[in-house]
Amino acid sequence: MNDNDVKKLVIIGSGPAGWTAAIYAARASLDPVVYVGVPKQDPGPILPGGQLMLTTDVENYPGFPDGVAGPEMMAGFQQQAERFGTQIVGEDVERVEFSRDGSPHTLHISDGTSVRAHAVIIATGATANWLGLESELRLATAGGGVSACAVCDGALPMFRDQPMAVVGGGDTAMEEANYLTKFASTVYIIHRRDAFRASKTMQERLLAKDNAEVLWNKTVVDVLSRTDDMGAEKIRAVLLEDTVTGEQSELEVGGLFIAIGHTPATRFLRESGLEFDDAGYIELGSRSSRTNIAGVYAAGDVADATYRQAVTAAGMGCQAALDAEHDLGARGLA
Amino acid sequence: MNDNDVKKLVIIGSGPAGWTAAIYAARASLDPVVYVGVPKQDPGPILPGGQLMLTTDVENYPGFPDGVAGPEMMAGFQQQAERFGTQIVGEDVERVEFSRDGSPHTLHISDGTSVRAHAVIIATGATANWLGLESELRLATAGGGVSACAVCDGALPMFRDQPMAVVGGGDTAMEEANYLTKFASTVYIIHRRDAFRASKTMQERLLAKDNAEVLWNKTVVDVLSRTDDMGAEKIRAVLLEDTVTGEQSELEVGGLFIAIGHTPATRFLRESGLEFDDAGYIELGSRSSRTNIAGVYAAGDVADATYRQAVTAAGMGCQAALDAEHDLGARGLA
Repeated sequence: MNDNDVKKLVIIGSGPAGWTAAIYAARASLDPVVYVGVPKQDPGPILPGGQLMLTTDVENYPGFPDGVAGPEMMAGFQQQAERFGTQIVGEDVERVEFSRDGSPHTLHISDGTSVRAHAVIIATGATANWLGLESELRLATAGGGVSACAVCDGALPMFRDQPMAVVGGGDTAMEEANYLTKFASTVYIIHRRDAFRASKTMQERLLAKDNAEVLWNKTVVDVLSRTDDMGAEKIRAVLLEDTVTGEQSELEVGGLFIAIGHTPATRFLRESGLEFDDAGYIELGSRSSRTNIAGVYAAGDVADATYRQAVTAAGMGCQAALDAEHDLGARGLA
Repeated sequence: MNDNDVKKLVIIGSGPAGWTAAIYAARASLDPVVYVGVPKQDPGPILPGGQLMLTTDVENYPGFPDGVAGPEMMAGFQQQAERFGTQIVGEDVERVEFSRDGSPHTLHISDGTSVRAHAVIIATGATANWLGLESELRLATAGGGVSACAVCDGALPMFRDQPMAVVGGGDTAMEEANYLTKFASTVYIIHRRDAFRASKTMQERLLAKDNAEVLWNKTVVDVLSRTDDMGAEKIRAVLLEDTVTGEQSELEVGGLFIAIGHTPATRFLRESGLEFDDAGYIELGSRSSRTNIAGVYAAGDVADATYRQAVTAAGMGCQAALDAEHDLGARGLA
């Protein structure tokens, strides 16, 4: 492999962060190569294009006043990146060797090849943790009223004045449940233990709401559905099991939100030398996309446990491309 | 004024950051009120909708594969914010009294009234500094080949293989000129003194380029134009004056980029108690939108001297709305 084979910039991931990085990098003549990944099941579906490929209606990405389907939006992002000359590869990056001496980084690809690059942007996202029920994943994929993001989906008309359930017991679950109290008739918080992990403030804030109710010592063992007027499958109820008595019961709901955390997609980076925070997200320098390794940048949900929105991920992707361009330029490589 | 008059959230500014904050806040039932500002000249045009109102083709905001006109894009953002129940006021906020004891903040409005709010998001943006020539501002407004942002506009087809000029001598001017060397036949850097303020690295990086040439001790005293095939006015040349000899000369160019800095729109915040960085931008906590004053958030170019893109501003607007919602919720106010 000679130096002509070294790419200026490789982008790993194809959600809003990855494509936005590609748009900016391609316009800056960095000839970016995007590894979009291959579809898998883990246990929920993971698709090139990221979490939005599983989102029916995106109403909060600015620029689409009437909303847009997630897959359609991601197709537009990709098209825009391709228009400016992005190269796209339908493979996974399976392992990385990041250099510490300014020489190119090496990435090992799922087709058995490897590629070298002066700069690498990691935009592999995160995946919501799911209960792992077949009915849950089926309804989540089909827009049937099961979701892992209340801020994304909670305000949709289908959930207005319906009873809704949230599964979880941490701060995020409290926040999601609290958000839903604005729209739901009642919000049931389903928790497998008899106490929350969430902070006291978050709990008090939620339990002060008239339409929030906690169901302790319960797990969801099945999601029950009906067929609506349009012939689509929608959630009707959840089947609960008491973790103490083992008793089962049905709870009628119009929506189910799983809030048991997210897992950033960083498994392939385990031996990379990158720094991670306690929750496993990539640690970034203050207000930049730079990681602890020169020439390695991160953008989107893989480095953001707080906001996790399409538009924040896109903004971070732009930052990563501009940071990479700046650094490559300073080294005379762009 | 009783407590019912206190707004949950006021957003000041109507660029990508302001509207995105409004979209998220409205969906979270924070009933946001957006003060969009009134048009003014200072010396370049300042319009509700921000700098994009002066941008003909936006090619790098993800989601528009074929590009979009700046004003059209901003109209879509506004429409989306209105759809979810944002209240819009066509006035400026002229002065603020931020409270430090948890009581509502007070904003003084250009119509002589005042408004109180538990949370305030500042998204007033920044304006490019211009030379102040009538011909320069006219061509900048009409898409005639004069711009204050190379990253935004430099890759447009109209500039390909043309000689281009950059005015300035700081790091940004070097960076913009360097960016343009990828597209231009020659990039002339026009500087009024005989040395740059820019860092040595940045200068060296630029001057290593074959197609970069510095014109020392020169100022642009007029922008000369022609009429193209479509009847539109386009730049043809700049009229230079030597700052030592006073001699005038014409330089033929297909584009002119003014890179003499930006000024964040913070004049109305002078006595607010907010913390600013050395360049006058609002100082934010690491990776959040929170300022040093509780309940006051900033988003977009008013708090970002580095990236300054529509998509980064939009991302920050989303963060500000989510931060405000989180904090209001924790105080039992949302």
